[in-house]
Amino acid sequence: MASFKTLIRVTWVDTDAAQVVHFSNFFRFFEKTEEEFYQNLGFNFDQIVRKHGIWLPRVEAHCQYKKPAKFNDVLEVELTVGEILEKAVKYLFKVRNKATAEIIAEGYLTVVSASKQSGKAVKIPEEIVNKLKPFLST
Amino acid sequence: MASFKTLIRVTWVDTDAAQVVHFSNFFRFFEKTEEEFYQNLGFNFDQIVRKHGIWLPRVEAHCQYKKPAKFNDVLEVELTVGEILEKAVKYLFKVRNKATAEIIAEGYLTVVSASKQSGKAVKIPEEIVNKLKPFLST
Amino acid sequence: MASFKTLIRVTWVDTDAAQVVHFSNFFRFFEKTEEEFYQNLGFNFDQIVRKHGIWLPRVEAHCQYKKPAKFNDVLEVELTVGEILEKAVKYLFKVRNKATAEIIAEGYLTVVSASKQSGKAVKIPEEIVNKLKPFLST
Amino acid sequence: MASFKTLIRVTWVDTDAAQVVHFSNFFRFFEKTEEEFYQNLGFNFDQIVRKHGIWLPRVEAHCQYKKPAKFNDVLEVELTVGEILEKAVKYLFKVRNKATAEIIAEGYLTVVSASKQSGKAVKIPEEIVNKLKPFLST
Repeated sequence: MASFKTLIRVTWVDTDAAQVVHFSNFFRFFEKTEEEFYQNLGFNFDQIVRKHGIWLPRVEAHCQYKKPAKFNDVLEVELTVGEILEKAVKYLFKVRNKATAEIIAEGYLTVVSASKQSGKAVKIPEEIVNKLKPFLST
Repeated sequence: MASFKTLIRVTWVDTDAAQVVHFSNFFRFFEKTEEEFYQNLGFNFDQIVRKHGIWLPRVEAHCQYKKPAKFNDVLEVELTVGEILEKAVKYLFKVRNKATAEIIAEGYLTVVSASKQSGKAVKIPEEIVNKLKPFLST
Repeated sequence: MASFKTLIRVTWVDTDAAQVVHFSNFFRFFEKTEEEFYQNLGFNFDQIVRKHGIWLPRVEAHCQYKKPAKFNDVLEVELTVGEILEKAVKYLFKVRNKATAEIIAEGYLTVVSASKQSGKAVKIPEEIVNKLKPFLST
Repeated sequence: MASFKTLIRVTWVDTDAAQVVHFSNFFRFFEKTEEEFYQNLGFNFDQIVRKHGIWLPRVEAHCQYKKPAKFNDVLEVELTVGEILEKAVKYLFKVRNKATAEIIAEGYLTVVSASKQSGKAVKIPEEIVNKLKPFLST
């Protein structure tokens, strides 16, 4: 199984008055990782819309927080594919502190393939499914 | 069972290029509702820190997205207490479109009571538990 | 001269690790005030787009920070109209701590009236200009 | 005169319902660039606090918007030092679309050196001034 990893340095605005990354920002880190994953596979949200006429709205999001992350920490976010359904994909994320290798957070995003015109769920394009398969966790 | 409700009007910066509220912002709406709930019960995060020496870090967050919310929609967020453990509380949230009464999103936040000094989980102050009990869903 | 005022309670995610509102969030407070001002005048961004075919993109933003704002502070944001040009409006903002009346921040946003179709600057609809005039500072 | 440049790819959450980067996010891009600039010079906000007992609060922020930036655009942010006063520094920023070289936005941030203990403005540490001087625009 392959996985995709990216690094994110915690910026000042990511933190809150408890001097740690605000919990909602981990979902933004997940999505940023998903974007870079697509970029790495050779496409992006906009191209999917233009080529296939689909959006990828999120239908479920989950995160467990294990350790705080602080300003300037370098986080390594690892993406794997948890499940590929006909019209949905579940991405799994693990966030580690790059310096200590400690797990900071773990979670998932479930995205559906939805027609931009009708808003209805539609089959994920074959071309995309094929690119995701190597990242399917077992 | 009591519940706490608050209204949030979707602001421009809450939206993304799909012209709907970005999924991560629902977690901010949840937390804002929790803050107003505390405010309504007569305390706030800062007072808890000062009086009891505890933070309320989030250890788990979850959301399911049912319908999109758009700019200027008025959302009604309803909070109930799903579970009160010795050192943790689980808050449940339902987000409805105020105009249509449709469910937009549902989710939860689990927060722990943590000593500001040691970082360790500690018992939730009795005084707070007593205020939360009427909102416990059955 | 009339002015429009709204109250904003500082939420946890607005703060940063210095335990004060992140400077970028004052621009979000300005815009939220502008939205509520329009709401109060009986229209909103979306209706302007639909009725007149125009967006109101920002071409300039400025803020001076006088005092920090903290979690749970209630801020009073006051909007006046600094200047109405043929194709642009300059909104002036003053942010005060509601409890102490101290000035926290002052700034402005200059927005242009732009055709949604061509992207070009166009005349601000007469109907909107008339509603803004009473708020023009002298 | 030297300048410091960094690249920022526009992420989904940076955009708003007009399908362009929300104007407030340029201030976050400015600050992120400032952070990477410090990183590049061999220090960061936290180390300045610990070593010199000072914060660097922002006292003024300004931006002019020239062209919209869209999802997935790669932006090149260029930082130079506009002015070094005894207790304040003004950073100038130019944001270009990396692909087209068009100017997207231009602005500045003025930061003061403030004692963490007293909150009062204090002299910028000599060591920092020396590192900033080569980036002073003429």
